Amino acid sequence: MEEKEEFTVTPWEVKGEIDYDELIVRFGTSRIDRKLMERIEKYGPLHPLLRRGIFYSQRDFNRILDEYEKGNPFYLYTGRGPSGKIHLGHLMPWIFTKYLQDIFDVHLYFQLTDDEKFLFKEDLSLEKAREYAYGNMLDIIALGFDPEKTHIFLDTESIEKLYPIAIKVAKKITFSTARAVFGFNNSNNIGTIFYTSMQAVPAFMVSEWTGKQVPCVIPCGIDQDPHFRVARDVAPGLGYPKPSLLHCKLFPSLSGGEKMSSSSPMSTIYTTDTPKEVKKKVGQAFTGGRVSVEEQRELGGNPDICAVYQYNYYLFEEDDEKLKKMREECLAGERLCGQCKMELTEKINRFLEGHQKRREEARKQIDNYIMR
Amino acid sequence: MEEKEEFTVTPWEVKGEIDYDELIVRFGTSRIDRKLMERIEKYGPLHPLLRRGIFYSQRDFNRILDEYEKGNPFYLYTGRGPSGKIHLGHLMPWIFTKYLQDIFDVHLYFQLTDDEKFLFKEDLSLEKAREYAYGNMLDIIALGFDPEKTHIFLDTESIEKLYPIAIKVAKKITFSTARAVFGFNNSNNIGTIFYTSMQAVPAFMVSEWTGKQVPCVIPCGIDQDPHFRVARDVAPGLGYPKPSLLHCKLFPSLSGGEKMSSSSPMSTIYTTDTPKEVKKKVGQAFTGGRVSVEEQRELGGNPDICAVYQYNYYLFEEDDEKLKKMREECLAGERLCGQCKMELTEKINRFLEGHQKRREEARKQIDNYIMR
Repeated sequence: MEEKEEFTVTPWEVKGEIDYDELIVRFGTSRIDRKLMERIEKYGPLHPLLRRGIFYSQRDFNRILDEYEKGNPFYLYTGRGPSGKIHLGHLMPWIFTKYLQDIFDVHLYFQLTDDEKFLFKEDLSLEKAREYAYGNMLDIIALGFDPEKTHIFLDTESIEKLYPIAIKVAKKITFSTARAVFGFNNSNNIGTIFYTSMQAVPAFMVSEWTGKQVPCVIPCGIDQDPHFRVARDVAPGLGYPKPSLLHCKLFPSLSGGEKMSSSSPMSTIYTTDTPKEVKKKVGQAFTGGRVSVEEQRELGGNPDICAVYQYNYYLFEEDDEKLKKMREECLAGERLCGQCKMELTEKINRFLEGHQKRREEARKQIDNYIMR
Repeated sequence: MEEKEEFTVTPWEVKGEIDYDELIVRFGTSRIDRKLMERIEKYGPLHPLLRRGIFYSQRDFNRILDEYEKGNPFYLYTGRGPSGKIHLGHLMPWIFTKYLQDIFDVHLYFQLTDDEKFLFKEDLSLEKAREYAYGNMLDIIALGFDPEKTHIFLDTESIEKLYPIAIKVAKKITFSTARAVFGFNNSNNIGTIFYTSMQAVPAFMVSEWTGKQVPCVIPCGIDQDPHFRVARDVAPGLGYPKPSLLHCKLFPSLSGGEKMSSSSPMSTIYTTDTPKEVKKKVGQAFTGGRVSVEEQRELGGNPDICAVYQYNYYLFEEDDEKLKKMREECLAGERLCGQCKMELTEKINRFLEGHQKRREEARKQIDNYIMR
């Protein structure tokens, strides 16, 4: 039997090399299989993030489609903990969320958890978390969500709507449960212990407000699943439908680690980076190249461990044929890292040029997106 | 050494016979001594609840008066957990709070903790807690607080103002601390663990809103002290002044127990009771009378264990001379329980007649008192 490295995945900590298949077992989720993809394909072409197994795990999405087909549409809910600037890893699930909004033509509630980040980050003030939230909102808007059907909110600003539901959720969750799911200990502050109630609220609020059973689908990183496992457990007791989930893998780091982390700026590309910064960061990225050009020509590179290839796989080469060709050329030693880095730099900068333009225009659009 | 019965006093549980002197030691508070009473007397005649040692314990009230004398006025903060109808025991500290508002001419913030009662009472819905809150508000207004300087609010309705401060408080309180102070265990729901942060907020909010160090005085039952001990501990780290406290003993039960409890209606007089109900309840009260009239005439009664005497002592005989005479007549066997019960029934009914009238008029005054 192969020995496996230990790894940890919680909403606040990712440690070790993640075995995503093992996570499906550990969390008790289901795989997004071929059959489910075929169901989705009825509404629009399959998104590369689905085809490539990056959105790979789910809870109850078949039930959601059953309901949708009966004329009972769901709404989408996703979120962001505003503790800094936005990088490409943050955008990935949101790009997928926009795809879902487009093909299903549904509402989206976008939660900015300024309270969470304030409570969990020792040195972050609430005022700073809110400032980040408004900056992050520009990136969200820049992705082009439907302004008629997208409702962005900060926890502290919409708390009047959220709190009555949050305490209903909190009443159903014991300290035992929170400790078991999130690994809390005695030194956790009492705000962090309460917080999961706030993250559950958007999954229930439309049902609460309308008095109807309105299904909710949450596209998110699989590290966020613990929150929604708890939310799903308490839903029936509160008379709400259990939220469905679509889980993605975590976006790779330029330095070859598992999750792009905001704490190492050189392995992260922010949406506000200049072309020069992108060039420098991609230039220093970890690749699957050999020690010398000669060796690489002879033996070929290794795309499977290459951050540059992963970037193409996750976000920057939507064309499966081109991606396949890139991989084959690399393996055959026909393509060197310099070329890949140059091409990726160009692709990222092309994307960022448009994004940054839309991000600036978003400053005037905030009012159209804020939840009322 | 005298053996003492064990007793417990927390905001949610009072068990055993309370030794109030021991509580001062246990909680680390100070006695309201003669010298402090003389300072208060400069602003108005001493309230019977002070003279008689019912408001008997304090934290930092001398500092508050120092500041007041330097022209830095404090504000008052008290509250109510709306889990049912109001009885006379609830009114007692509020009557004292009005006295303080009158002699010092200060603002009062009155918190109705609908979230607390919902979280701590298994069978209470949030909707019902809010309904109680609005009923309780009528009793508060009926006491005649200054509408220009009194600000009543429900936690869930004013949460937009309260929550940002609550999470600042929560960030400073570990689960360890909350467990040690309130006796929480693993089966407590995570809302109850967070809740003390909400009760701390009114002690800080005026300082937060004005950006100044505005002193706060909290008149309350001594069972509420644990909340404010925690609030005082976190205040300096948040840049707020520590709130001062004035603690009262718990109002006696008609059945002779320590605290008038809403769970035994016959030992409790509600503000909405009819004269007939009052007569019946007082008629069945526990007294210090003897088994027969003859024995009582011969040996005298015992006012110290008598609920009827306690009612006079706490609220219904403000005249010290009359109270003294009542006590002496009882001890001497010159006064029988029937007479005391009849007199008390009359006093309570006279009070309730006026209160109920003002309580009805209060329905039209809510707008003048709600916090904006």
